[in-house]
Amino acid sequence: MQSQTRIPPPRSSGASLADWRPDRASPQPIYAQIAGYFRAKITGGDWPEGMKLPPQRELARQLGVNRSTVVAALGQLAELGLIEGRQGGGTRVAGKEDPPWTAGSWNDYVEEGTHYPNLPAIQAINRLEFQPELLRLGTGEPAPELLPGEEMRSILAELAREELPLPYEEPLGSLRLRRAVSAELGRIGIRAEPSSILILSGALQGIQLVSLGLLPKGAAVLLEKPSYLYSIHSFQSAGVKLHGLPMDKRGLVTEGLEDLAARAKAAVLYTIPSFHNPTGILMDAERRRELMERAAALGLPVLEDGAYQDLWLDAPPPLPLKALDGKGQVLHLGTLSKSASPGLRIGWVAGPEQVIRRLADIKMQTDYGASSLSQLAAAKWLEDGGHKRHTDALRLALRRRRDLMLELLERHFTELAEWSKPAGGFYVWLRLNKPLPLPKLFRAALAEGLLLNTGDLYDRADARHLRLSYAYASPSGLEQGIFKLAELVRRMDRLF
Amino acid sequence: MQSQTRIPPPRSSGASLADWRPDRASPQPIYAQIAGYFRAKITGGDWPEGMKLPPQRELARQLGVNRSTVVAALGQLAELGLIEGRQGGGTRVAGKEDPPWTAGSWNDYVEEGTHYPNLPAIQAINRLEFQPELLRLGTGEPAPELLPGEEMRSILAELAREELPLPYEEPLGSLRLRRAVSAELGRIGIRAEPSSILILSGALQGIQLVSLGLLPKGAAVLLEKPSYLYSIHSFQSAGVKLHGLPMDKRGLVTEGLEDLAARAKAAVLYTIPSFHNPTGILMDAERRRELMERAAALGLPVLEDGAYQDLWLDAPPPLPLKALDGKGQVLHLGTLSKSASPGLRIGWVAGPEQVIRRLADIKMQTDYGASSLSQLAAAKWLEDGGHKRHTDALRLALRRRRDLMLELLERHFTELAEWSKPAGGFYVWLRLNKPLPLPKLFRAALAEGLLLNTGDLYDRADARHLRLSYAYASPSGLEQGIFKLAELVRRMDRLF
Repeated sequence: MQSQTRIPPPRSSGASLADWRPDRASPQPIYAQIAGYFRAKITGGDWPEGMKLPPQRELARQLGVNRSTVVAALGQLAELGLIEGRQGGGTRVAGKEDPPWTAGSWNDYVEEGTHYPNLPAIQAINRLEFQPELLRLGTGEPAPELLPGEEMRSILAELAREELPLPYEEPLGSLRLRRAVSAELGRIGIRAEPSSILILSGALQGIQLVSLGLLPKGAAVLLEKPSYLYSIHSFQSAGVKLHGLPMDKRGLVTEGLEDLAARAKAAVLYTIPSFHNPTGILMDAERRRELMERAAALGLPVLEDGAYQDLWLDAPPPLPLKALDGKGQVLHLGTLSKSASPGLRIGWVAGPEQVIRRLADIKMQTDYGASSLSQLAAAKWLEDGGHKRHTDALRLALRRRRDLMLELLERHFTELAEWSKPAGGFYVWLRLNKPLPLPKLFRAALAEGLLLNTGDLYDRADARHLRLSYAYASPSGLEQGIFKLAELVRRMDRLF
Repeated sequence: MQSQTRIPPPRSSGASLADWRPDRASPQPIYAQIAGYFRAKITGGDWPEGMKLPPQRELARQLGVNRSTVVAALGQLAELGLIEGRQGGGTRVAGKEDPPWTAGSWNDYVEEGTHYPNLPAIQAINRLEFQPELLRLGTGEPAPELLPGEEMRSILAELAREELPLPYEEPLGSLRLRRAVSAELGRIGIRAEPSSILILSGALQGIQLVSLGLLPKGAAVLLEKPSYLYSIHSFQSAGVKLHGLPMDKRGLVTEGLEDLAARAKAAVLYTIPSFHNPTGILMDAERRRELMERAAALGLPVLEDGAYQDLWLDAPPPLPLKALDGKGQVLHLGTLSKSASPGLRIGWVAGPEQVIRRLADIKMQTDYGASSLSQLAAAKWLEDGGHKRHTDALRLALRRRRDLMLELLERHFTELAEWSKPAGGFYVWLRLNKPLPLPKLFRAALAEGLLLNTGDLYDRADARHLRLSYAYASPSGLEQGIFKLAELVRRMDRLF
């Protein structure tokens, strides 16, 4: 199964120059500044022996200088014996030839460790998302202009007049925030006392804590396939196996759940019932009831990811699974990242008290709690009704963007792909009529300034889907982007 | 070796009532309110079958009611068949007798998971620290009145006028903060570009990321014994073994390092050279040089915990190990938690770029970065010189408290124990003249309102030490506390 294969990290992606540029105001020649900077990096051990430098052209681009300047700088370094060129092998930091890393330094451990690296494409996306010139067609967060900057500033201004929680917070997180979350959960039908809630540094941390704290090594997790969870490695790194369940338009297919659970010796089931990531599918009320009945009969605990629960666009979704749970069968994850602020890093998990306490204990060993400043801002945000007002407004904006996306797809993709109208969340799950080598499509799109989230991130075998997001790109960006993407798909369709 | 033994978590420490109290203004009788609350907890699955309730006396205390009221409430629940009393076994949530947990719910997994629970005493301390009436004699954080509440409030007021970083930050953390940290590190002799720095959600997270991301399963870590690291389980939970090195007054003893490293097949060395936790020992300059030479010769990477580096009281400490490192041999951990604000949860790790990138990648899978609000506040705090001004003032206050602590020990402990004067940090490592059962001392102290950090938390075999902190308790608290503690030790000395 693809999820169990260890993926080696990319071997030395080369020096990162992102933060350094030569100083044009300095009396020192530019090439000498570059040589000096590189020398410090090499002799200081930051760039270990054997590390490959980017090609000259690339260095010139990154540093914003002519290639001849780079050549002069590298020439000086080669004279000092600090770098060496190799036939066909580019330029490397000089030294031992094999192994390429300094023995006995931290660099030797870059490929060790039990936690898997991110997929290379995810690593690239995580880095590339900070290149402002790229058009991001798959990003799973609201555009900056859709975030409540103004309102958060006034919350900060109010906090500036309050007692600040500068010391550590208690293990479960700020009681004030847990009370606010408890009220918030009450609004979507979930009864959870503050003592049954753990504040997380983002909902993703909940998955990490469950994998470290609750699941025995080698346990099996059932989940929708495709799933967001295939794109990260928290479960797999903890030695947990993933077993995908098929989906239909009503959510994950519960037919045959008993068989697969028995065959996989499943420990738990992970699901995103509302506006599933990446497919956008909404599990209907009947399916939810069925799932809960079957899970209860099987004794299969459920981890419900409610990240998008609030982001319905046409009508509120059915009650979350946790609201149907009378037996401590469900852990429910929620977050502020998809609506108010990804950067606040505030999420929560609600469930049986002793389970929550176990997770809190691991959290204390992991990061000693979430930022108290973020917790305080989040509490105020929820208490003052700012969250509800903002979510209502965000829905309107997302609905407009979704409708625009659907219109654009209608215009450019009718012959190329199929899709459904999502009833909430951020995503259209585009199914190409013809399979394509998605990693190639990713790179080709990147060359044209488009950043894509391709289907293989969510199901390694997939060669047909793109996760398109209408949440991030601006309306004019969407127009351009979908047009360009259609061109690209047409071109590749002819090639493959 | 004690660190490799799996410690079972305490079996159901009972219901937590911390957040709920009966409403005296309600027309419903108090006993009925209690019964109603308990019923909801039980039927909702929060309190699983078989879970033990606290003794009636304890419940009455926690709820602030008479014991007879508790008896009435429990009587009602017993009539409903929701709880049952057992001879000598206290009161439990009714249901299956054996196993005590609901089969097939999350509660079954509380003792599973690969990450070890905190030591029971650490769990207790983590909870008890939020009981304001306790006198905390061992707490490793500055007292709230020593934290810069006023200054942080003005930083928030300024932030309220700026563009807020509500979206996600880049994988290494905010560039602005990394620049400020880079400058800060420069002041203690460490050259680290922003691209060699990863912002952490507290320095503790660095240890977690190193254990998950860099160390192969079964790797061995050398460290001082005793060490703070024995009190948490990040390394051990990742399957890493700890091997203690002896210390003397000049820091960890490097004599014989080669032998132990070879015998243990050590992968890395973890050390707190400046104002070691828990002993307060400062590694001198010569020892640092020796350690670095030996580590380099051995090819042994070093994880330097610099949490207390800045908190010198008499004279600045020698250069950190990272400043002596020319080969990417050292990863350096720093934090704002010990000076400015534990609650901000901001730390950093500096080291070779590709190692930092690997850690950043795991961090993205763990919590998707630290709070951007905290990062922004921290950047401003460092940039504006607030940190330096505050640390200078904090030093004065800590010096006064240390001197008071030493005076009090002189007065009450000369016949009972030995200690050294710490040159920085928070701790006096008190060595009792007679070994004592420290867990008993912990409980006896708790009964008198004193919260202690006993030596067995930092070296399981220890029966002689207490980590006393002058950073947290107020001067009058210290006076009372040290006096009471001496009484207690004298009493126990006679018993054991």
